[in-house]
Amino acid sequence: MDKRENKEAVLLPGEIEKRSFEIITKEIGDRTLDPFEEPVIKRVIHTSADFDYLENMYFSPGAVEKAMEAVKNGTLIVTDTNMAKAGINKKKLASFGGEAVCFMADEDVARRAGKEGTTRAAASMKKAAELKRPCIFAVGNAPTALFALRDLMEEGIVKPQLIIGVPVGFVNVVESKEEIIKAAERAGCPCIAARGRKGGSNVAAAIVNAILYQIDDRR
Amino acid sequence: MDKRENKEAVLLPGEIEKRSFEIITKEIGDRTLDPFEEPVIKRVIHTSADFDYLENMYFSPGAVEKAMEAVKNGTLIVTDTNMAKAGINKKKLASFGGEAVCFMADEDVARRAGKEGTTRAAASMKKAAELKRPCIFAVGNAPTALFALRDLMEEGIVKPQLIIGVPVGFVNVVESKEEIIKAAERAGCPCIAARGRKGGSNVAAAIVNAILYQIDDRR
Repeated sequence: MDKRENKEAVLLPGEIEKRSFEIITKEIGDRTLDPFEEPVIKRVIHTSADFDYLENMYFSPGAVEKAMEAVKNGTLIVTDTNMAKAGINKKKLASFGGEAVCFMADEDVARRAGKEGTTRAAASMKKAAELKRPCIFAVGNAPTALFALRDLMEEGIVKPQLIIGVPVGFVNVVESKEEIIKAAERAGCPCIAARGRKGGSNVAAAIVNAILYQIDDRR
Repeated sequence: MDKRENKEAVLLPGEIEKRSFEIITKEIGDRTLDPFEEPVIKRVIHTSADFDYLENMYFSPGAVEKAMEAVKNGTLIVTDTNMAKAGINKKKLASFGGEAVCFMADEDVARRAGKEGTTRAAASMKKAAELKRPCIFAVGNAPTALFALRDLMEEGIVKPQLIIGVPVGFVNVVESKEEIIKAAERAGCPCIAARGRKGGSNVAAAIVNAILYQIDDRR
């Protein structure tokens, strides 16, 4: 190992994360954030290096606290991409008795989507809703997943413990997030969303992890 | 299925992607991009909804064409997160005889990192380098992975077919990308990077996928 590597290797991941959050805190400045929402917003900025999330994050009242309760009681987290599932700290989630699943690659989901003329994302939300288990939905990709969840909530088929609505993109994305915010409010379900075009599977996973870590941090 | 859902379900993923790229093209305007780099930049914007990538993407000369050749000859793609691996279109990659791997969760990698006082990311790059197989490295998270690759190239242990250097964050990230750009140039290895703080596992996967899709699109 040469000197240069020694120097650079001194900072291990835990320390880098700590310093990163210090930099984020400093750059946010004296803006006051809700104490439960703050770690979520900061982790999203940490995962994206994008301070737009300081402006575009939506939280229904008490969403983070309610989500923390759901996790503590052992929730199922349903994602709309395997990428979001991969980004969730599943070891930490399991320590609360929870589990993360993604049904996007399931054959019955593909069949159902074909039969119903919808997307696999929408069909995978339906599959999850029909499990009738307490669920958090973390949607980082597909607007159609949010439209499906809206309809499922309105039909009384599902009452999510939390909907994370953070698809990214240019077509139907902005609308899907505004729709889910309203639908969640009508159904009395907690909701966290990133308004506008931005979001992604990485953002969805960061929001889940921020909720998991906050439970420990507040112990 | 109610009327609203019918209306929204009309746009299936392929069409949404097509329209999204049309919007991105329109918003980029009359700026001229290299024809091989353009689909990569656009897919990164597509995955992030962030036009900063129009400014911050670095490509060594001919990097995309060289990467396409590597993929066509059946390359191994090594990622520094399972999330990046999850985001790569592995079916498409397999159609060229390629494979994606991530060694981050391997026990021998954890042991080696502990023993050498480095990170798992760095140890997983070393493990990949020692396979002595033609490799593309896709690094979306860990600056230490890029520092390790720099050292491995300088020691002559590895000569990557492409390095994708797109860690995201606030500590050592900017520096790691500038370092890998220089080291890749010295070693004569193709390199694609996102200068500055931005990047991520999603960006790394998007760059890989853009390369895969471009091979088909140019047939």
